[in-house]
Amino acid sequence: MPDTITALATAPGSAGISVIRISGQDAIAIADKYFRGKIELSKANTHTIHFGEFVHNEKIIDTVTAAIFIAPQSYTGENTVEISSHGSMIVVDEIINALIAGGARHAEPGEFTKRAFINGKLDLMQVEAVADIIHSTSVKGAQTSARQLAGKFTPRLAQLRQKLIDIASLLELELDFADEDIEFLDRPTIIKRMEETRDYCQTLAASFKSAEILRSGFFVGIAGYPNSGKSTLFNTLLERERAIVSEIPGTTRDYLEETIILNGISVRIIDTAGLRDTKDIIEIEGIKFVESVLEQSNLIIVLNDISQSENYSDKLLKQIEKRFPEHTAILVHNKIDKAIDYKEKSNELYISAKQGKGIDKLKGLLAVKAKESTDRIDDILLNQRQAVLLGQVVSSLNSAIEASKAELDNTVISIDVRQATKSLGEITGEIWSEEVLNNIFSRFCIGK
Amino acid sequence: MPDTITALATAPGSAGISVIRISGQDAIAIADKYFRGKIELSKANTHTIHFGEFVHNEKIIDTVTAAIFIAPQSYTGENTVEISSHGSMIVVDEIINALIAGGARHAEPGEFTKRAFINGKLDLMQVEAVADIIHSTSVKGAQTSARQLAGKFTPRLAQLRQKLIDIASLLELELDFADEDIEFLDRPTIIKRMEETRDYCQTLAASFKSAEILRSGFFVGIAGYPNSGKSTLFNTLLERERAIVSEIPGTTRDYLEETIILNGISVRIIDTAGLRDTKDIIEIEGIKFVESVLEQSNLIIVLNDISQSENYSDKLLKQIEKRFPEHTAILVHNKIDKAIDYKEKSNELYISAKQGKGIDKLKGLLAVKAKESTDRIDDILLNQRQAVLLGQVVSSLNSAIEASKAELDNTVISIDVRQATKSLGEITGEIWSEEVLNNIFSRFCIGK
Repeated sequence: MPDTITALATAPGSAGISVIRISGQDAIAIADKYFRGKIELSKANTHTIHFGEFVHNEKIIDTVTAAIFIAPQSYTGENTVEISSHGSMIVVDEIINALIAGGARHAEPGEFTKRAFINGKLDLMQVEAVADIIHSTSVKGAQTSARQLAGKFTPRLAQLRQKLIDIASLLELELDFADEDIEFLDRPTIIKRMEETRDYCQTLAASFKSAEILRSGFFVGIAGYPNSGKSTLFNTLLERERAIVSEIPGTTRDYLEETIILNGISVRIIDTAGLRDTKDIIEIEGIKFVESVLEQSNLIIVLNDISQSENYSDKLLKQIEKRFPEHTAILVHNKIDKAIDYKEKSNELYISAKQGKGIDKLKGLLAVKAKESTDRIDDILLNQRQAVLLGQVVSSLNSAIEASKAELDNTVISIDVRQATKSLGEITGEIWSEEVLNNIFSRFCIGK
Repeated sequence: MPDTITALATAPGSAGISVIRISGQDAIAIADKYFRGKIELSKANTHTIHFGEFVHNEKIIDTVTAAIFIAPQSYTGENTVEISSHGSMIVVDEIINALIAGGARHAEPGEFTKRAFINGKLDLMQVEAVADIIHSTSVKGAQTSARQLAGKFTPRLAQLRQKLIDIASLLELELDFADEDIEFLDRPTIIKRMEETRDYCQTLAASFKSAEILRSGFFVGIAGYPNSGKSTLFNTLLERERAIVSEIPGTTRDYLEETIILNGISVRIIDTAGLRDTKDIIEIEGIKFVESVLEQSNLIIVLNDISQSENYSDKLLKQIEKRFPEHTAILVHNKIDKAIDYKEKSNELYISAKQGKGIDKLKGLLAVKAKESTDRIDDILLNQRQAVLLGQVVSSLNSAIEASKAELDNTVISIDVRQATKSLGEITGEIWSEEVLNNIFSRFCIGK
């Protein structure tokens, strides 16, 4: 029988109200030790709210409301009380201290949600969606997680898994009738079904990169030769003076990163040190960063100082395209206010970061690129754990498909198919281990 | 008919849950536009909680619970819905934006509580207690405010006010029967009753200083000649290296202030610049601060470098006692580790801030002094507005008592008594003006 846990469920700080959650067999009995209202909480119906005073050691700690959820009709599946107090950290501490004196224990990070999972209120994909919603940085990310939490996705994976289990069962059944040489399902059909599932899982796994963008933001690195105006562009995109700007080449040594929201997606702009040979040790350190920054960028802006010449940065662009072949690099010509004469090409951008010219067009392009990169996302915001498991499903099925085509023994094929069902089960949490759970819940905050 | 308002009621930030409050005639109807649960919220009973999805533009924003409070049984006295979503600022923004699109308006600071007051759910002392609880910095302060919020105090003031109204009425009634020379209550009794009320209000008003200590903390200023070890003592009391310490006299130029909690009361320790004549301009600026710091201190520690001599700081102590006659100054001898020979006096403290000797005893003394200074606090945490009004009650009653003793005309006495009842009524909010309300609610946060 799990013990009763308590924690502040809302964000800490002064506010109108704070909510303290208590969950476990004794949650209502413990709350009743301190709650003075019209009726005892133990006599209350589930899903009802009661106004009263929270009294400890004969002292009124606060006037509160207590919301009652009787097991299994609660978030955790256990008896739960949610006490709404005034939003004062002093009051919250006093209430939690009282509840602990009354027999509750302080909850660990994610422990409420862990209990919800163990009691079958949420599957593992829903659990992970909860963490994603809480830490979401984009509207689309939050909405995808909300859909995932609403449980629209797990049934689909469960269905796929059931299909694979059926295939494995049929293959194993055939083994029992091996002497009679009965085939319950013809090979081409089996192969076709496995291929369909594999393709689906492969497409799904490929959405991981997009999910990462929704989760962490779309990274835009600004690269360029020294004094091409990278920091000025950075400030202009941010609409504030974040980076120190000077006429002296090499002013930016660290890299600076700030976030702007475009089309509901976090776009993380990274200003970098100018790329050139240098003997200044600090600056060399800065340039070392540039490579790793560009490495993780989803889009690289190569900023050309057009007042030097139209082709001044062509070599740099080529170097970057060669070094990061999978990244999109775009050439943006800066300082058009200083350039005397140039011919615009349709696939390149022309701006004056200093005067704000062409910035709306650049932002528009960034918004489009960020949106495109997340278009693959539909019903699930895949995380690394799930992507790795999907990869395993694909690999097991490939192996099973090959074995089928090579007309290997049913036993061999069946092992691979069973392995794929296991991986699918781990994604949804039909199969789980304490280690996996602990790893997942370590991401959670206390009170969730 | 007031419009429907909405705001985040919990503190902003990532957390388990956030609560968005909606209040007003249309609160339930507006929430129903987005809530998809087992039943429509408009069909729900008051004080019930419903699980469902919050859907806007066909998109699931989050899975939520909606708590229903039907007027007048709510905090504001209006129809109210409290939506608990996951604690993500993105989700909260989306929900609030949806509700505003649905006809609600973003609430102003304190607007929920203002409606509670206007609808007679809270009196003005309770309203002020709400703000005090939220911003409380001490357990005792929070508890006193909670008692005040529980409404134990207003009836007492209302009773006093009624007594005064009775006196005024009798005095005015006598005027009607002036020709017949009837006395409904004899003068000595009237005077006695007024004196009792005055004395009570006077005692109450005197608790304002204690209330300020509970509200803002007990201020302890550390004064002393340069290099007496003030910053070392400051760091030792804080148990961390907050102030820069050096052997060079005059190291501290700004004043530093940090809070420690002793006996549940915030004790605010202030390190100051050494007091001496100096020609360093920055240091002179620093010393100018010292006066104003000591002026607001509830207790002044005069720190003596006993390695110089036992009497080294006696002149400074006398100067401080003369300059701040109403403040308590205590002499604390520092650097006992370096002092060769000294005789301890029972009313002075001997410490080594560097080695941590005698610090527990000093902290014990600070705790006692802080507690003593708040002992007058009982059922109400007086604020400045209330203290000023109580002062007006006292002054009106003094005037009425004098007039009674001088056997002046009933009309004169009655005017003063009526003035006193008006001031008392303004304290509890039986009499109020929009200006006073606006002033009070400007202290509130949005969502309360």
